[in-house]
Amino acid sequence: MNKIRIGIIGAGRIGKIHADNLLRLPQAEIAAVSDLFAGPELEAWAADRGIARVTKDSGDIIADPQIDAIFICSTTDTHVPLIKQAAQAGKHIFCEKPVSMDIHQTVEALEAVRQAGVKLQIGFNRRFDHNFKRVREHVQGGTIGDPHIVKITSRDPNPPHPDYIKVSGGIFMDMMIHDFDMARYVSGSEVEEVYAQGNVLINPVIGELGDLDTAIVTLRFANGALGVIDNSRQAVYGYDQRVEVFGSKGSVAVSNDHPNTAEISTAEGIVRDKPLHFFLERYNAAYIEETQLFIESLTNGSPLIVDGNDGLQAELIALSAKLSYKLGRPVKTAEAIRLLESEQLKETV
Amino acid sequence: MNKIRIGIIGAGRIGKIHADNLLRLPQAEIAAVSDLFAGPELEAWAADRGIARVTKDSGDIIADPQIDAIFICSTTDTHVPLIKQAAQAGKHIFCEKPVSMDIHQTVEALEAVRQAGVKLQIGFNRRFDHNFKRVREHVQGGTIGDPHIVKITSRDPNPPHPDYIKVSGGIFMDMMIHDFDMARYVSGSEVEEVYAQGNVLINPVIGELGDLDTAIVTLRFANGALGVIDNSRQAVYGYDQRVEVFGSKGSVAVSNDHPNTAEISTAEGIVRDKPLHFFLERYNAAYIEETQLFIESLTNGSPLIVDGNDGLQAELIALSAKLSYKLGRPVKTAEAIRLLESEQLKETV
Amino acid sequence: MNKIRIGIIGAGRIGKIHADNLLRLPQAEIAAVSDLFAGPELEAWAADRGIARVTKDSGDIIADPQIDAIFICSTTDTHVPLIKQAAQAGKHIFCEKPVSMDIHQTVEALEAVRQAGVKLQIGFNRRFDHNFKRVREHVQGGTIGDPHIVKITSRDPNPPHPDYIKVSGGIFMDMMIHDFDMARYVSGSEVEEVYAQGNVLINPVIGELGDLDTAIVTLRFANGALGVIDNSRQAVYGYDQRVEVFGSKGSVAVSNDHPNTAEISTAEGIVRDKPLHFFLERYNAAYIEETQLFIESLTNGSPLIVDGNDGLQAELIALSAKLSYKLGRPVKTAEAIRLLESEQLKETV
Amino acid sequence: MNKIRIGIIGAGRIGKIHADNLLRLPQAEIAAVSDLFAGPELEAWAADRGIARVTKDSGDIIADPQIDAIFICSTTDTHVPLIKQAAQAGKHIFCEKPVSMDIHQTVEALEAVRQAGVKLQIGFNRRFDHNFKRVREHVQGGTIGDPHIVKITSRDPNPPHPDYIKVSGGIFMDMMIHDFDMARYVSGSEVEEVYAQGNVLINPVIGELGDLDTAIVTLRFANGALGVIDNSRQAVYGYDQRVEVFGSKGSVAVSNDHPNTAEISTAEGIVRDKPLHFFLERYNAAYIEETQLFIESLTNGSPLIVDGNDGLQAELIALSAKLSYKLGRPVKTAEAIRLLESEQLKETV
Repeated sequence: MNKIRIGIIGAGRIGKIHADNLLRLPQAEIAAVSDLFAGPELEAWAADRGIARVTKDSGDIIADPQIDAIFICSTTDTHVPLIKQAAQAGKHIFCEKPVSMDIHQTVEALEAVRQAGVKLQIGFNRRFDHNFKRVREHVQGGTIGDPHIVKITSRDPNPPHPDYIKVSGGIFMDMMIHDFDMARYVSGSEVEEVYAQGNVLINPVIGELGDLDTAIVTLRFANGALGVIDNSRQAVYGYDQRVEVFGSKGSVAVSNDHPNTAEISTAEGIVRDKPLHFFLERYNAAYIEETQLFIESLTNGSPLIVDGNDGLQAELIALSAKLSYKLGRPVKTAEAIRLLESEQLKETV
Repeated sequence: MNKIRIGIIGAGRIGKIHADNLLRLPQAEIAAVSDLFAGPELEAWAADRGIARVTKDSGDIIADPQIDAIFICSTTDTHVPLIKQAAQAGKHIFCEKPVSMDIHQTVEALEAVRQAGVKLQIGFNRRFDHNFKRVREHVQGGTIGDPHIVKITSRDPNPPHPDYIKVSGGIFMDMMIHDFDMARYVSGSEVEEVYAQGNVLINPVIGELGDLDTAIVTLRFANGALGVIDNSRQAVYGYDQRVEVFGSKGSVAVSNDHPNTAEISTAEGIVRDKPLHFFLERYNAAYIEETQLFIESLTNGSPLIVDGNDGLQAELIALSAKLSYKLGRPVKTAEAIRLLESEQLKETV
Repeated sequence: MNKIRIGIIGAGRIGKIHADNLLRLPQAEIAAVSDLFAGPELEAWAADRGIARVTKDSGDIIADPQIDAIFICSTTDTHVPLIKQAAQAGKHIFCEKPVSMDIHQTVEALEAVRQAGVKLQIGFNRRFDHNFKRVREHVQGGTIGDPHIVKITSRDPNPPHPDYIKVSGGIFMDMMIHDFDMARYVSGSEVEEVYAQGNVLINPVIGELGDLDTAIVTLRFANGALGVIDNSRQAVYGYDQRVEVFGSKGSVAVSNDHPNTAEISTAEGIVRDKPLHFFLERYNAAYIEETQLFIESLTNGSPLIVDGNDGLQAELIALSAKLSYKLGRPVKTAEAIRLLESEQLKETV
Repeated sequence: MNKIRIGIIGAGRIGKIHADNLLRLPQAEIAAVSDLFAGPELEAWAADRGIARVTKDSGDIIADPQIDAIFICSTTDTHVPLIKQAAQAGKHIFCEKPVSMDIHQTVEALEAVRQAGVKLQIGFNRRFDHNFKRVREHVQGGTIGDPHIVKITSRDPNPPHPDYIKVSGGIFMDMMIHDFDMARYVSGSEVEEVYAQGNVLINPVIGELGDLDTAIVTLRFANGALGVIDNSRQAVYGYDQRVEVFGSKGSVAVSNDHPNTAEISTAEGIVRDKPLHFFLERYNAAYIEETQLFIESLTNGSPLIVDGNDGLQAELIALSAKLSYKLGRPVKTAEAIRLLESEQLKETV
């Protein structure tokens, strides 16, 4: 068997996680890593893992004829140009979410991928989580009948640094985008209309930066189902990631993962440990599986679990939510792009 | 101690439940019962319980100088005139929800109560449920800090008969009104804005009658918190009554009550029994407590847990939800009454 | 319908509970109450409840020709003579557990009951608990196949007063006797052999009085199943009452009842309230049901859920446990009575 | 850093698991693997993993001067001679449980280890499980005060093949030995007395081979606590691995691990998936950690979590249980070895 040779662009936290997960796979090897800030530290890190080449220039990765597939783990503003270049070079692509914050550019990137005939997987890692997969299986398998109500709770243990907030694209594009994808994944239906409510309740600095830290978004799906997502940037008890799908024959609900099942009973009450702290702990196995299934798709042609269109749809819902909040009214995803063009909104969104 | 002498108007299911709960209380006695359809059956029922007087005419109850307090358990359209008459006769009043479906009339009824200086408790029985009381205690006690997100799930095991749907006032006024009251009760804040989404997913007949069977309503509270309520007329697994309040220092969540704690583990999976079937089973103890605390309020002057204004506020939110769904946009509770007057909406709401 | 007329002997805590539960039943009325310490307080209590007669002499109750059934709620040493007298007077009998601490006397009492042809129910209230009934239903219904392992945990929130310990008959006869009955009830099989381990870990005074405060007893059933019961006189987190039956097709397990389902999530962990505090809270509904089913058995001839033989068998197992602990070896229930006679053990047991 | 060079003796299922776990560790490398049945398949397996040397002769591994530590994963009868040889060759040793089925030989093996001054870790993998570690932490940290009752449930999803039963050493030495170690681990105290009950309820073949398939063992600890372990060879709902320690200040209890948190609610009931199927699924992370901490102990001198004496003590308790069952009475661990010598028992145990 020929191994899939991988190049990684962007060796920050998530790039390194993907690297370590790739190293476990017998069908893959990492040929090269690029990072704008490559230096002795990254070289040592690569050497420890038997990765032969480290470069500052992502172009070196894309130009390397021996590389089959590229992991784009650099900042969001680089995603679209890198996808285009990689696609034109005939490389398969794994790209972190979101593809971009400009939906027109995302469309262009997907078109480049389509023309090149390469594969593109988007980093919606939660689709590979044991709990959410089980929800999807039950909905697909008909256990709960026709879906009527989809409920998603997604709360972070603490807000990101204000510097990150500034470039994040806002709560809908940065954080809730995962939940928009989840809504489509578990319901098996497209979102047609969105209404967003939000507030700044945790840190006024977030508000000063034009963002929200608490939000509730109502969804209406093409199949008639209704949905609701709630986000908070700060759940002091830890990462809160729950999904429930309710339908004509019942419901399926998943709650959080905990580090253990211990229950402590004392004179004060019954206590258990908080949920797994954050996404690295909670989605550790999901990160491994998304990498593995991407490689398998390259080797055996199995369909991708999450492709470019999934990335686009989630962005479209996020954009609709952003517009809905701005306009104070529900927005149809079908009208979001048109609204985006309107003079009045152009500057503010 | 002088016993509080009670007259019950309306001896349907709920009137009889209140009667049986009153009979347990040493401080109360039931002097008379009226029902439009009173006959031998009701007389036998009353005789079994030592209730001396049965009449068809509610006026007999109101005119009885020995009666201290009246339970209004007749149909909603009779609530306002009966409240006015009872108040004028100086009787304390327990009235089932909603006070009326016309908010102006509700205001008039409350004004009559105010002028007469009598007490009025509204039948929001869920405030007396062990689970929801515990939520309220933790929120009031500061355990979870400032409330940020309020989530209420409320699903019935099966929809009412179409004949009932016709006169029910619609899902927001008939069913979700309990949840609107719950939202105020657990958050300790007023609702300022409402956005309602809904659909007919269970029974098309419900849609033909101009009603919804599935709904999600987003709330914005005066204290800045956000809320969401989801209702379904049919949860095949039984009565689903859950509340969660999330705040700056944590969250408190209550799940359903079950008939037992048995867990069955077999080769097929781990199974437990469904929740308590419907409101009579789930809120049995709450019905007892609401009656008891009403009587206590009359005997020792303790404040009512749920008064006339609570009834009014819940109706106002329900009205706002109805208008929001009709208009397809969020509606502020402060504008709902004005909207109600507008020519365009007059006929349809 | 003629009401069953009840006489209550012994108006301590449990006698009063039975009285209040009987007062709820339309088919029963309380004709008289006797208590050695009857006085103005008890008379006021009885007057409040419309109980016509209060006496110091239990003989008055037994001699009253209008009384159909007698509740024996006096101290254990009075049970056997009262059962004999009541039986001879043709009264049906409800007697608190244990019948006696001398198994020969228990046999005599049962014989008197048999000869008189009256009914005798023993106060093993836990058989009427919603959780344990569900266990029994599943075992009887075959859900778990043939029972292999029965596990019972039974721990009190705090030990009784040393004065009570002195006359209690010891942990096996006073406390674990409920669990011995439960073992028979849920397994549907007789206990053939017992091995008891125990220690004094909570309060040395209990040891000085010749008793244990912590015990584990292994059982071997006639159907081949094995069982284990653990008791502690002090679980600081409250009343701990759990049962599990494991069999060839699965297991059924019941855990504790809690005052609510609230889960509090904070930076410190996930907390819920302790179980219902003690037997009055936990078995409130079970006490009501045991009374009701006893009365129903008298009115409609339905079989008793727990009869005299159940009382005898539980005592026999308790005696075997006591002997096992004393001898430091397993004891067959069939040999326990014989061992009891042996000179060596006579004084110590 | 010099890597620890490992030789693996015995390349069956467990040997291969340890190998794969060692391959994840940067501080370790596998120098050689021996197996009596080594052939092309094992050579391919080794080549895939970059393991240079495959041999049929365990002596090659022991004689290799470049090897620092040996994993003994061959059949139980080979453990003692291999431990002695490895110790004499100055190798550190990881040995699967039990060390042997002859306690005198186990003592000899430990003596050889002591004289050689090498490290010996026994494969009690459950000490590294996230749940049981949390129990131990709470007991050691004083959360539950002084331990009073230790309860361990340990049930396999299905019995091993009769061929394995024959050479297994019986349920106490083969299966419950893990629980004996767990009892010592979580209680922090030695076991002084054992009483074993057992039966053949699953498969009569197991009885014909002189073994039991269902057993309950009562323990008495040096610190006065009592304990109970129940084992079944067949829980149809899957691997059941629970521990509870109850003490003067409360209790800590751990339940099973499940593949997900999904709860399915339908008209039939509330269902969740069965626990993780068997030890490979449940203890996957524990196997990784036991390997890692062994290697760390070799590199940084940290104490072993489970050493030779732990292996010996568990065997001693298993022997006592075996004798107890045979004799039908409790057996003190201190008397077990003496009993073993008695003429009468020699042949049967």
